[in-house]
Amino acid sequence: MLNRRDFVRLAAAASAATSLPATMLPQAPKKIRYAAVGLGRISCQHFMPGTKLGQYGEITGLVSGHPDKAAKFAAEYGVPQKNIYTYETYDQMKDNPDIDAVYIGLPNNMHAEYTIRAAQAGKHVLCEKPMANTPADCRAMIDACHKANRKLMIGYRCQLEPTFIQARKMIQDGVIGKVWAIEAANGFNIAPNEWRSDAKYAGGGPLMDVGIYSLNACRWLLQEEPKDISAHSYVDPTDPRFKGVEETIGWVMTFPSGAIATCNTTYGASQEGFTRLHGSKGVLEIFGYGYDGIHMSLRSKPAVEAPQPDMNKDPHQFLVESDYFSRCILDNKEPGPNGEEGLRDMQAIARIYAAAKKA
Amino acid sequence: MLNRRDFVRLAAAASAATSLPATMLPQAPKKIRYAAVGLGRISCQHFMPGTKLGQYGEITGLVSGHPDKAAKFAAEYGVPQKNIYTYETYDQMKDNPDIDAVYIGLPNNMHAEYTIRAAQAGKHVLCEKPMANTPADCRAMIDACHKANRKLMIGYRCQLEPTFIQARKMIQDGVIGKVWAIEAANGFNIAPNEWRSDAKYAGGGPLMDVGIYSLNACRWLLQEEPKDISAHSYVDPTDPRFKGVEETIGWVMTFPSGAIATCNTTYGASQEGFTRLHGSKGVLEIFGYGYDGIHMSLRSKPAVEAPQPDMNKDPHQFLVESDYFSRCILDNKEPGPNGEEGLRDMQAIARIYAAAKKA
Repeated sequence: MLNRRDFVRLAAAASAATSLPATMLPQAPKKIRYAAVGLGRISCQHFMPGTKLGQYGEITGLVSGHPDKAAKFAAEYGVPQKNIYTYETYDQMKDNPDIDAVYIGLPNNMHAEYTIRAAQAGKHVLCEKPMANTPADCRAMIDACHKANRKLMIGYRCQLEPTFIQARKMIQDGVIGKVWAIEAANGFNIAPNEWRSDAKYAGGGPLMDVGIYSLNACRWLLQEEPKDISAHSYVDPTDPRFKGVEETIGWVMTFPSGAIATCNTTYGASQEGFTRLHGSKGVLEIFGYGYDGIHMSLRSKPAVEAPQPDMNKDPHQFLVESDYFSRCILDNKEPGPNGEEGLRDMQAIARIYAAAKKA
Repeated sequence: MLNRRDFVRLAAAASAATSLPATMLPQAPKKIRYAAVGLGRISCQHFMPGTKLGQYGEITGLVSGHPDKAAKFAAEYGVPQKNIYTYETYDQMKDNPDIDAVYIGLPNNMHAEYTIRAAQAGKHVLCEKPMANTPADCRAMIDACHKANRKLMIGYRCQLEPTFIQARKMIQDGVIGKVWAIEAANGFNIAPNEWRSDAKYAGGGPLMDVGIYSLNACRWLLQEEPKDISAHSYVDPTDPRFKGVEETIGWVMTFPSGAIATCNTTYGASQEGFTRLHGSKGVLEIFGYGYDGIHMSLRSKPAVEAPQPDMNKDPHQFLVESDYFSRCILDNKEPGPNGEEGLRDMQAIARIYAAAKKA
């Protein structure tokens, strides 16, 4: 997917890097300079303010189909006119050295295309979850970033949060013993006219958008991949909110260790996110996946003092996410929630949908 | 299943009832006189004390294979020696006018036989859940009680508790709107050498014993029967506690209204019982199915004051159950949780096991 010009540029850079002594290399930039792609809620209310508060990133570019919106945020973040792109001029970013990376906050169906085009333009990519609408699209994104030697991270902010990290460590350390049963749910009552309930844009319903939190929490906390999956879904055929997507979907997953997870998600009702793990020695629950803090409760035998992790308030979770990805770029480290991680969720989601369809 | 002598007796009673004026009929006894069948934990610690505290029942008989145990409880409840039976002399209860009804607190695999024999001896039957180990056994129990014109109730104490009754009414009244998603779980870490984890006695694992609470709560609160069911189960093959039964089983049920329930149960970990219903206008959760009180939380839009139902402490729930069944007998009313209700759970359980086996 790299064009000839990219190859020449990359080859020259590689040559310079190997021919100069380390002390003479140009200093790595202190901050990663991001272009926010798509000026929706998640970009404007969460990612951009989070990045601004952080240490290692700054907003230096914008991509939008709405010139007024772009102008407004350009003024707020001090973005010069020359760094404002539309979806048509997007590829010209390759000639702009003020932009190191992009943040993809677009509808799901645009994730693959704009990730691949960003990589081809020589930019690192932080892409929102769900990674894409199909495993094949995820694979193409991974390949494009790999070929361009650019980092790719998926916006699994929970994996970077102290609550989740502490929970995973406690499970690993055996604080709740052998995990046997997990219940998880996450959902909300969706407003009319959202792209998220239109299959054309979202590729699916609540499973893609918020059920993915339950799926990812089970996989990530157990550090296992689902073995068997069964599922059932339903949509009220008379409800105009739903265009080709499920309203509610419930599924059961088994894991190689023997743990069984039952998960539910809906766009028809408010469901405060929770993942509750029952082990032979105790129960650990993580609840509230919102931007205003993720909580934990712990009951174990013998009792262990319940941790009180930092309950990061919005936009602090995005600060953590943005700074984390910036450090990955600056330190040339592979992000934890990388493209392979996003792909594995999408593979499981494809299996859940297939099971529901078959059922 | 009635013998000739029973028919003659019943026919004579029927004849007397129709030939005497109502005012001349013998007064119905004020209290129903129960024989407790099986002197295990549930009979001795819950049913008998509950009945003693109640208004409409008393313990006048005991059935046990342990003479010492029987003598001890006979002294406590003032039961004369002639009203103490063994499993061999059980059928002789038919000649004992001091016993109106039996409470079956035996291992699951004995429920069918001792219910049928009680009915044949002319006694009403209050049988613990799960009703029996197979739908066919349930049907035979229903038929036997029907033929003997005896009442049959299954010990679904939750259905008689103010918390559950109020929850069902709130759902019916639309307080939480249209119910879309339900999560439920109930389980515990079982001790070694319990008959409940031996297929020979229990007919299944945690699903039969405690998972049935989740199943029954979903069915009873929605007043619907499951449509589609999928399930997965697991047992640690090296754990000697489990003899032919599952350790953990998770299942998904759909209902004709479109509601989807995901349920989980295990004998490998402590799982405080809960059923959480998510509706278009709010969330209702019932939690803690123990004998020490069933609780409820409610979040709805518009907000409705959360009810504070009577949190009945042990053995109060059994008082309610015992008195309720006594009133059904005294007033000649069909119990709510009757044999058909027990059968419907067992039919669903058979489907859940079949789905897990197929998966």
